[in-house]
Amino acid sequence: MGLLDLSNDLAIGIDIGGTNTKYGIVNHRGEILEKGELKTDDYPTIEGFINALYDAMKPLIERQSGYGLKGIGLGAPNGNYYTGTIEYAPNLHWKGIIPIAKLVSEKFGVPATLTNDANAAAMGEMMYGAARGMKDFIMITLGTGVGSGIVANGLMLYGHDGFAGELGHIIVRPGGRKHWSTGADGSLEAYCSATGITITAKKLRAENIHSKLNEVPEEKLDSLAVFEMAEKGDETAIEVFRYTGQILGEALANFIMFSSPEAIILFGGVIKAGEYIMKPTREHMEKNLLPIFQNKVKLVFSELKEADAAILGASALVWEA
Amino acid sequence: MGLLDLSNDLAIGIDIGGTNTKYGIVNHRGEILEKGELKTDDYPTIEGFINALYDAMKPLIERQSGYGLKGIGLGAPNGNYYTGTIEYAPNLHWKGIIPIAKLVSEKFGVPATLTNDANAAAMGEMMYGAARGMKDFIMITLGTGVGSGIVANGLMLYGHDGFAGELGHIIVRPGGRKHWSTGADGSLEAYCSATGITITAKKLRAENIHSKLNEVPEEKLDSLAVFEMAEKGDETAIEVFRYTGQILGEALANFIMFSSPEAIILFGGVIKAGEYIMKPTREHMEKNLLPIFQNKVKLVFSELKEADAAILGASALVWEA
Repeated sequence: MGLLDLSNDLAIGIDIGGTNTKYGIVNHRGEILEKGELKTDDYPTIEGFINALYDAMKPLIERQSGYGLKGIGLGAPNGNYYTGTIEYAPNLHWKGIIPIAKLVSEKFGVPATLTNDANAAAMGEMMYGAARGMKDFIMITLGTGVGSGIVANGLMLYGHDGFAGELGHIIVRPGGRKHWSTGADGSLEAYCSATGITITAKKLRAENIHSKLNEVPEEKLDSLAVFEMAEKGDETAIEVFRYTGQILGEALANFIMFSSPEAIILFGGVIKAGEYIMKPTREHMEKNLLPIFQNKVKLVFSELKEADAAILGASALVWEA
Repeated sequence: MGLLDLSNDLAIGIDIGGTNTKYGIVNHRGEILEKGELKTDDYPTIEGFINALYDAMKPLIERQSGYGLKGIGLGAPNGNYYTGTIEYAPNLHWKGIIPIAKLVSEKFGVPATLTNDANAAAMGEMMYGAARGMKDFIMITLGTGVGSGIVANGLMLYGHDGFAGELGHIIVRPGGRKHWSTGADGSLEAYCSATGITITAKKLRAENIHSKLNEVPEEKLDSLAVFEMAEKGDETAIEVFRYTGQILGEALANFIMFSSPEAIILFGGVIKAGEYIMKPTREHMEKNLLPIFQNKVKLVFSELKEADAAILGASALVWEA
């Protein structure tokens, strides 16, 4: 042993998505020493997937064998921290309840911890990103869906059954837009996800025939296309983000009055729209807060590179465990 | 000293309300050994109030002098746990920031801890009531206003600045009923407090001229009067609670998707309406939950006597400290 005890100095982070699985080996400073990915949907069985993951990672682990491996952190949709199981994830091939933490731990021979993907993102932000040193914050991921991770009293909020923090499914417009998958009326995700923004864009361009959004082919009308048209000064495109930001801001105000966080951190593809969405979000957030909460809560973007955040977040579970 | 060490076996609980202040001496089992009250609004200065409180409590404390006094817990509107100060409470004479925990501690010579009244109620429920043994629950107080106390990971949720859990001020109907005091449009308190129920009753009786609610004099039209008419089979009175329960149930569903509690505990004058309000609340709560949360969360009434709950809740702060 040298001057420093480097045993247990590395963690593996694995982010399992419906299409791709990203993995990496991370040190305490949040540096990704090795990384790679494989196609999740190439593996119809969980056993096949774990074998492939092990085969892919083995050479990477061997290359870092001078250091001890403390454990593996897993982020996955519908991942339950308490049970280590993925439960009925709609976007994965593996149906029912999958005891993935146990299976991975057995295969790799080190402890494995699971959480859902948004909680993993929050962990990453707390350990390496914009939430360093914070004990109370909320992470909102604005991607294809809307996810969230909540930290209170310095602890990840898992709740009684491990499913706390499903803020994308909170009803923000009772009787409002029907969700394409859950069927709920007026949930946050129905408006403020990339999917929701596309719906809003389609609706508003139909009502505004002179909008440049009408020049975008149907299949290319996503939040990036709306952003590009906003940059060209198209009023309808700007209104798409204003409307989205209003609903997001109102929801954030409610979240603040629940847990009184130091900061709200936004993450995901949608935030590429920058101030087009941030300005109305901030404005409607402040407007809907009780005075005792106003002008106190930081509303910031994630500080992690989107490509690395999922791996870092999953690996952060290992240090916390 | 006898067989048991009884030092530090007693706590004082003081609940400061706009009109009355209730105080008591409580043991570990939640038995109130001594109690009394004084009129808060008789004392225009905080110093006068604390002197009067001390003079009133001194003989009670002396009567229990065989036991040690561990400390004093205070519940008050806008009470901040972190700072021990009451901040800008609209219903109290004492304006600005009042360092009440420090003043009480100096006067009584024991440590004093402050929290807001709804958090104190949650503490009482956790120590002596329906939430015994629970690590994740939400307490909702339905009185003149709507208050809340949230417990997560076994800890009271205070948030970054001590003001977490203002669920009465969450917006449940964007653009809806204006709040008489905050000016917010569509907050939970505007609909589900006793005050909100009276507004709903006035509105619905005006629209339904045959309703028995029209027999109640204007100044007596409160949630108890509506309950009495519901008991007599008046459809409009029943609709008042159904409407209130729908909005409350929708809000509770959102709270559950935030913190995934084991139970939601309802407390306060409004719950005297029993199943008239519970049934629609439960129904709309379940209906608005994601399937993973359905039929899991207990929705129950407080188990503490309303007259004692405030004192017990405040005293519970002492054992936690």
